[in-house]
Amino acid sequence: MVKCSIVGATSLTGGELIRLLARHPHAQMNCLTSRSEEELDAQDLVPALGKKTKLVVEKFNLKKVIHSSEVVFLALPHTLSMKVAGELFDAGKIVIDLGADYRLQNSALYQTWYGHSHERKDLIRKAVYGLPELYRKEICKSNLIANPGCYPTSVILALAPLLQANLIEQDSIVVDSKSGVSGAGKKLSSATQFIAVDQNFGAYKVGRHQHIPEMEQVLSDVAGKKIQITFVPHLLPVSRGILSTLYLKRKKTAKRKDFEKVFRDFDAKEPFVRFLGFDSFPTLHRVQHTNFCDIGAFFEEKSDRVVVISAIDNLVKGASGQAIQNFNLRMGFEETEGL
Amino acid sequence: MVKCSIVGATSLTGGELIRLLARHPHAQMNCLTSRSEEELDAQDLVPALGKKTKLVVEKFNLKKVIHSSEVVFLALPHTLSMKVAGELFDAGKIVIDLGADYRLQNSALYQTWYGHSHERKDLIRKAVYGLPELYRKEICKSNLIANPGCYPTSVILALAPLLQANLIEQDSIVVDSKSGVSGAGKKLSSATQFIAVDQNFGAYKVGRHQHIPEMEQVLSDVAGKKIQITFVPHLLPVSRGILSTLYLKRKKTAKRKDFEKVFRDFDAKEPFVRFLGFDSFPTLHRVQHTNFCDIGAFFEEKSDRVVVISAIDNLVKGASGQAIQNFNLRMGFEETEGL
Amino acid sequence: MVKCSIVGATSLTGGELIRLLARHPHAQMNCLTSRSEEELDAQDLVPALGKKTKLVVEKFNLKKVIHSSEVVFLALPHTLSMKVAGELFDAGKIVIDLGADYRLQNSALYQTWYGHSHERKDLIRKAVYGLPELYRKEICKSNLIANPGCYPTSVILALAPLLQANLIEQDSIVVDSKSGVSGAGKKLSSATQFIAVDQNFGAYKVGRHQHIPEMEQVLSDVAGKKIQITFVPHLLPVSRGILSTLYLKRKKTAKRKDFEKVFRDFDAKEPFVRFLGFDSFPTLHRVQHTNFCDIGAFFEEKSDRVVVISAIDNLVKGASGQAIQNFNLRMGFEETEGL
Amino acid sequence: MVKCSIVGATSLTGGELIRLLARHPHAQMNCLTSRSEEELDAQDLVPALGKKTKLVVEKFNLKKVIHSSEVVFLALPHTLSMKVAGELFDAGKIVIDLGADYRLQNSALYQTWYGHSHERKDLIRKAVYGLPELYRKEICKSNLIANPGCYPTSVILALAPLLQANLIEQDSIVVDSKSGVSGAGKKLSSATQFIAVDQNFGAYKVGRHQHIPEMEQVLSDVAGKKIQITFVPHLLPVSRGILSTLYLKRKKTAKRKDFEKVFRDFDAKEPFVRFLGFDSFPTLHRVQHTNFCDIGAFFEEKSDRVVVISAIDNLVKGASGQAIQNFNLRMGFEETEGL
Repeated sequence: MVKCSIVGATSLTGGELIRLLARHPHAQMNCLTSRSEEELDAQDLVPALGKKTKLVVEKFNLKKVIHSSEVVFLALPHTLSMKVAGELFDAGKIVIDLGADYRLQNSALYQTWYGHSHERKDLIRKAVYGLPELYRKEICKSNLIANPGCYPTSVILALAPLLQANLIEQDSIVVDSKSGVSGAGKKLSSATQFIAVDQNFGAYKVGRHQHIPEMEQVLSDVAGKKIQITFVPHLLPVSRGILSTLYLKRKKTAKRKDFEKVFRDFDAKEPFVRFLGFDSFPTLHRVQHTNFCDIGAFFEEKSDRVVVISAIDNLVKGASGQAIQNFNLRMGFEETEGL
Repeated sequence: MVKCSIVGATSLTGGELIRLLARHPHAQMNCLTSRSEEELDAQDLVPALGKKTKLVVEKFNLKKVIHSSEVVFLALPHTLSMKVAGELFDAGKIVIDLGADYRLQNSALYQTWYGHSHERKDLIRKAVYGLPELYRKEICKSNLIANPGCYPTSVILALAPLLQANLIEQDSIVVDSKSGVSGAGKKLSSATQFIAVDQNFGAYKVGRHQHIPEMEQVLSDVAGKKIQITFVPHLLPVSRGILSTLYLKRKKTAKRKDFEKVFRDFDAKEPFVRFLGFDSFPTLHRVQHTNFCDIGAFFEEKSDRVVVISAIDNLVKGASGQAIQNFNLRMGFEETEGL
Repeated sequence: MVKCSIVGATSLTGGELIRLLARHPHAQMNCLTSRSEEELDAQDLVPALGKKTKLVVEKFNLKKVIHSSEVVFLALPHTLSMKVAGELFDAGKIVIDLGADYRLQNSALYQTWYGHSHERKDLIRKAVYGLPELYRKEICKSNLIANPGCYPTSVILALAPLLQANLIEQDSIVVDSKSGVSGAGKKLSSATQFIAVDQNFGAYKVGRHQHIPEMEQVLSDVAGKKIQITFVPHLLPVSRGILSTLYLKRKKTAKRKDFEKVFRDFDAKEPFVRFLGFDSFPTLHRVQHTNFCDIGAFFEEKSDRVVVISAIDNLVKGASGQAIQNFNLRMGFEETEGL
Repeated sequence: MVKCSIVGATSLTGGELIRLLARHPHAQMNCLTSRSEEELDAQDLVPALGKKTKLVVEKFNLKKVIHSSEVVFLALPHTLSMKVAGELFDAGKIVIDLGADYRLQNSALYQTWYGHSHERKDLIRKAVYGLPELYRKEICKSNLIANPGCYPTSVILALAPLLQANLIEQDSIVVDSKSGVSGAGKKLSSATQFIAVDQNFGAYKVGRHQHIPEMEQVLSDVAGKKIQITFVPHLLPVSRGILSTLYLKRKKTAKRKDFEKVFRDFDAKEPFVRFLGFDSFPTLHRVQHTNFCDIGAFFEEKSDRVVVISAIDNLVKGASGQAIQNFNLRMGFEETEGL
């Protein structure tokens, strides 16, 4: 059993990690922490845990976390994980950071989008972007895994194989994403109150969401050239799930069968990617509470556009499930273990 | 008081018409009909009617409708209004058809998209497309007003002023629309059951929604050349409202201030269009239970794209409210009367 | 036109008052205030207001409110309206207080349930409980109208006629109420966040809700003897509406037809009460956005119990609509005007 | 591995059974059937199954089911399982019937409430009521297990220990239950369409729900005398979960600590019952997707009433999870296996 800790266990992604680790055959939760002074029964966070599990969330204590863990999952707001991740890394721990602080390879970009200068620039280059479908080999060897954002997971998985195969015009990428409310975390906000969300729908942070540089960085890396995208996120009146609709211009030479082959191969190779086929589209129901990313596509003759739709559960494949997938890879377990 | 009838009064748009006509100062509902043999108290359809209103929905009888009405609203499924609209038109009545049968000016196109040959081809050319913002003058004189579809209303109002001002590349139009469930009407379907919709979200009829030819026809008319669009509708877990996000490529010569001027002028001229400004975006909450179409925009420097977002209540501006607006225009009342 | 002001205009009930007063034929909103330093366009609170209405919410200024109003609506949290209501009353204004501060006739009880000593005990006896169905005559003459709470409105209207007719055992009253989230107002709370409410349901403040003494006071007044009730409120995942299910033991002598007569008479006499009959039950859909209280009943032979179910919109008949009803009565307008 | 079949696999409870059996360590789904002619991929019913599971739902064939199963789960509408259950029982199979046909021990009562005469009266007495908390011993030996209804599970678990300990007045039982929409199954109905349920709430089948005789039968059995209850079910705008609020009169001799002891003992003894304590109440969120029944209580001094609130997931503890619990008992596995 691998000794694990969760720092930020009372967050939404922390709760989902508890749920997943509790049923993982090779993990043992040694230390759950939060910033609160008061101890908390983990069952109050995750009532599904059952009657026999006795887990307590205690106040964060770095020494204790270091002492009791081989792997530490960080489920902290951005700017907060920066320092803790560094200290744990320095202490030789394997860190899987669900926050944003080690995703951008460019610290200036980090400062621009997150409004905070990076305090561990030395570590940025040591971090691996934890999207197994792209960086599996690197993840297996890294002690600092920057777990991807939820929107980026849904968008990159739909785009990366097409860019790798050079099937689409690189300046044609339009992404219309719709996310459930849990993407915003537990922080109190008038925008996420029930009366504000229920029966409502709308766009937010149009063209200025902090996940844009993350997506552009990874897509550029994949394509081998600078990629820019137009990205508009919307808030759905559901608790969980992200669905992204991508509008792409195909290269003149790219045929429908080329797209189909790329997606079929991706599905065949990846345990958590399911290609539903052309004219067959994912829904949130299909992926909620699972680690799957489902993908469907439409080929529009009249316009040379290809529409690709992907769906994930933002708390699972978009956060804690992917963290477990990374954990499995890093520890040498079956990639699907416990998922 | 204008003597009015509603044929198809038990439909969702029929119920909304009852609600709106009941408070209209110049309308009197003389005859409400449905296909059912049984009489129905209109209060059971529209409980908000209040205690004193005594209205009954009775079985459809053409003669009685003709005898008792000056204006007839048709709230029938497509292919069903075709014949009735013709008979009422022939009898000299003013017909406001909320169905799709007289929207397409090309009967072959109608057959292709609605799977039914048109039985009153003679009347198609006499019908006016009932979008007041574009065809106000024609509506004032017509006895056959084809009330627009809900998606087309939300999309055309966002696009028409830009096409008229020649600000966007005509082949660049991508429309990502999201609709509440009432857009599908009352017909029983496993896709619109609560357990299928709640907590769910997904695209449907991708690239093959029957509103596509309607939008392309009107937009082509406005632009003076053939316009084609990529259109993907999605089903939202809300009862009412449509929000459309449009991705457009600006003409190289078109500046941000040109877009702003066009929208500000449109807002100033139109009683039911509200331009919220750049970087300010509509939500469903803003427009539900109103006849407004709210529009916001984003100008993306890095990509030369303009994102326009529009929102309407599909049952009001997208159906029954717009029908009242057309009624007001046709009868010479203040356009906003009762709305 | 009666000069009106709303103090607390940015609250949910304040917004609903704006909506209702805007369409009232005899009211004119002269002054809208909040505690915020910043001016606010009322359209941002109530987008349905339309394009031409220009109303601004400004920082509260007692003198200005006094100067510019004949009637003042207070939509403030409890303990806050106490003092303002007194000052406005002293200045000769007609005050309609939507808060709880003047509902309880016993200041000790007020202190027990609201945790704050009453600062204007002198005024308590001058206040009239603004439930028109019980205190119409007194409302017409009062300058301090304590608008009832939302739960009490739904419960008292279902019980009062039965107690007046002496049909039920007074110690048998069990009330199971279910409320939409807007009942909790706009205050940020983790309990009213979307992710906490959506897909959820549960009881809260079981046996200790602050509306219990209010209900017991009014029911005791109606019955002419001390009435106690068991009251359990629950939170529904909807934005608006309260449905209360009451379980009552009939007096041995009370027959089904006695209950029926009492409710039919109540319906006949009251413009905003609708009795749906035995075995016919209200839903939230029937009453949302209306000022109606709908009532249905079930007579259970095997147990001598009568089940009475009532439904209201908590923001309309349970708050702002009832305030308008009181306004109409006090100013001598038709009771249903503008509703 | 026990060879299992599911008859009625396309129903909601059938889907939930597939989900649960797929992860059960000792069960193997040999045959999934429905009434449809067409074969169906089980992944389309239960997308969470994952990529590797290959299960097909085929048309029902009695011989094949008999041939390929040791245990058969029936997830059929009432009146339909009657005959099939009999045939499988006659063939020596272990039948776990999730339908209502073998729950009532009195065939006349069955006919009254289900409108259909019972065709296998000979088997009724051989059936065991599959509520493990009451009939564990009998379940272990029975070949015909009548899995309880969802409302009865939530109500009986809250009441049975109190009746056994003789703490409450037997004629005082009032049950106010609220259920999510999945309780109604997949059958198309205007009452369960999204636009009918969303933002709505109301009672239905007041005093005449078919689960009443089932509850009264079991409670009478437990109490050793005839028990009658007042039962009012309501429809919640959520997909899953039942919460029941019970209003009970305590015996004069029964103290608060007596209630507490009874519930604490029940919790200690039962793997799937959790007593949250006095003044602590369950919510649907706590139990969704789990097999737990959570119970809380309130002791009202002023009225001698005790309020007990219980919550379950209607598709798990209220149906398919309980069926697995029964399966485990019958086959001699750990009772919590796979749950």
